[in-house]
Amino acid sequence: MAGKNPGRTAPSGTRRGRDAGEKLEKLARTVADTALRQHDPSIDIPIRALSNVAFNEKSRTIEMGDNKQQRNFFNYGQAKRFMQTMLVASKCKDLIDADKTASIRQIYYMAKHTIRGTSEKTFDDQSESDPILEDLEVAINSLREELHIFASNRGNLVGPITLVDDGNTLDCARMGSAGYAVPSIVEPDVVQFKKCDAKFILHVEKDTVWRRFHEDRFWEKHRCIVSHGGGQPARGMRRLLFRMHYELKLPVYVLLDNDPWGYYIYSVIKQGSINLAYESKRMAVPEAKFIGVSSFDYERCGLSDDVKLELDANDVKRAKQILDYPWFAGKKPWEKEIRKMIANGFKMEVEAMINKRLTYLTEEYVPMKLADRKQWLD
Amino acid sequence: MAGKNPGRTAPSGTRRGRDAGEKLEKLARTVADTALRQHDPSIDIPIRALSNVAFNEKSRTIEMGDNKQQRNFFNYGQAKRFMQTMLVASKCKDLIDADKTASIRQIYYMAKHTIRGTSEKTFDDQSESDPILEDLEVAINSLREELHIFASNRGNLVGPITLVDDGNTLDCARMGSAGYAVPSIVEPDVVQFKKCDAKFILHVEKDTVWRRFHEDRFWEKHRCIVSHGGGQPARGMRRLLFRMHYELKLPVYVLLDNDPWGYYIYSVIKQGSINLAYESKRMAVPEAKFIGVSSFDYERCGLSDDVKLELDANDVKRAKQILDYPWFAGKKPWEKEIRKMIANGFKMEVEAMINKRLTYLTEEYVPMKLADRKQWLD
Repeated sequence: MAGKNPGRTAPSGTRRGRDAGEKLEKLARTVADTALRQHDPSIDIPIRALSNVAFNEKSRTIEMGDNKQQRNFFNYGQAKRFMQTMLVASKCKDLIDADKTASIRQIYYMAKHTIRGTSEKTFDDQSESDPILEDLEVAINSLREELHIFASNRGNLVGPITLVDDGNTLDCARMGSAGYAVPSIVEPDVVQFKKCDAKFILHVEKDTVWRRFHEDRFWEKHRCIVSHGGGQPARGMRRLLFRMHYELKLPVYVLLDNDPWGYYIYSVIKQGSINLAYESKRMAVPEAKFIGVSSFDYERCGLSDDVKLELDANDVKRAKQILDYPWFAGKKPWEKEIRKMIANGFKMEVEAMINKRLTYLTEEYVPMKLADRKQWLD
Repeated sequence: MAGKNPGRTAPSGTRRGRDAGEKLEKLARTVADTALRQHDPSIDIPIRALSNVAFNEKSRTIEMGDNKQQRNFFNYGQAKRFMQTMLVASKCKDLIDADKTASIRQIYYMAKHTIRGTSEKTFDDQSESDPILEDLEVAINSLREELHIFASNRGNLVGPITLVDDGNTLDCARMGSAGYAVPSIVEPDVVQFKKCDAKFILHVEKDTVWRRFHEDRFWEKHRCIVSHGGGQPARGMRRLLFRMHYELKLPVYVLLDNDPWGYYIYSVIKQGSINLAYESKRMAVPEAKFIGVSSFDYERCGLSDDVKLELDANDVKRAKQILDYPWFAGKKPWEKEIRKMIANGFKMEVEAMINKRLTYLTEEYVPMKLADRKQWLD
């Protein structure tokens, strides 16, 4: 079920910043040339708004459209943002040349200064530099990681996979009780796969659930990788799931709370997020399967009412919004699933399965789910 | 400077739950015996409130006093909590016997059920079981970890230390770009120290700052361990700092944002938190030194006004509260430090140091701080 699209595989063995560095240089050269020819320098920036985002039925990911906006230097309303774009681009180029990385906060501090001869700052706040960075990503079609920007390190995994991270060979089955810490940047020049005996990936929502699976040695019994993202998975975790799925041909199964937030996390892993639609093609795993917790599990598994958490008005509203997402709408099983949650009037957490018995989750519930693909939601 | 108090060293090589299991059994036996003698069973629970917390000037930690409250079974206002205490105790005993651990959420689900013959639940909400667990910890004088309860895995470290975690030998200088993931439970039966070439520990607040130190190979150049807690350090990180400090005799230096929250985090690492005062004796590191960011660094380091973040009314209020804490009050250098921040009218983040140059923080600022102990705050 995995690896149908080998073209998606990230290039390996290349210095990740090289391409981005060349693109930044080209961008700068074009702007400089235009200025030297005494014309108005401009940059084309693809529009990052819902109006320019669509669900591609064929690739089954959220994609950005072709609409662009020109950002001009000689335009009173755009000049400052033009300057900011050039400034952030130049700081990224510095990072790439120095083979260093920085956080979005650090880029902000690097780029902030008083404009000579004025009392004006280049940036007043990080809320100004963050969108500029996203503009730059789409303008030159490079991932943030390729611009040498890191996000937070979040998420861990355990299982029979050996990888090389930052030159260190790591057997992820032997990384201690908190497992392998997934870094923010997992591009092929940082993380390489060396050996993998896993048959699939089970991705869970929270670290407390993950620990249950690790302690109960689920990954050993089922020869799999168990990962968590500490809530909505950070970029590093999503990118690693993507790479393991396409490069190692590992199916991805997702186990989340039975609530609108769980559905949403699944949707982000599967087809990408609306905000960062341009990253879907290198982060989304459209073949990922949702294995639980399903709204039908209450009856199916004979759970007690101890597991019920009442839905509030906001949950119901959010569930209805999710029903309308084009990637859920029209899918009968998903419509049944979400409508059933609303009809139940309650939500259920993965950890609630423990109400039956501490190891019910890992020794009965998930094995039952994995064995019966009719229970999967796609 | 470290290791003055060898008596604090945690017992090593013992099965951590054994003692706690015996204490739970003793508690249960006392209650059962009293009941069989047809008396009112009761438990003595030390009071976990500010009224029963004091700063011990000698040990320099926040400590709990001796005030206790009796919780009786035959008391209309206490019967439910008595039952809940016994129930949580019994679930912890189950965990210890099965050599398993659970999160506080999982304990809640394990202990929740309908009381036979009624429609009443043992617990309506986790907010009922969490304080019961803390009552139990103080009643039998065991850490949560000894009751086999885990909190979140949070925090990472890198440096020349080799440890054994869950049977896996880990060289923390070679754990990849996100470093060693510090688990929630680091008691001696889970984590053992094998070899340590580090001379000290530098603990920083955030993972993005930590990554700067890791990428710039600070730990290699200065032969030290660099750790972060992802904000206020979780129990696992605090306990590991404690163990490395006392067992490996490593001084602990702390680098935090120059704001009231930074002062507070330092205070928690150094003398414990008010809420969990009873844990101080096994988590607090009173010898920890605050090396920055100090309110005097703006002038001392010739920083530009790009680094200034305006103090708001709440910051000022919080700073004044902190000035009144008995462990800050009366310490001249701390009073000067905090008053200077209020006088400055601004706060500064660690990452703001990067405004000077990307590696200013790791190559100049911190080495300068470490070299001049007159700049440390104690």
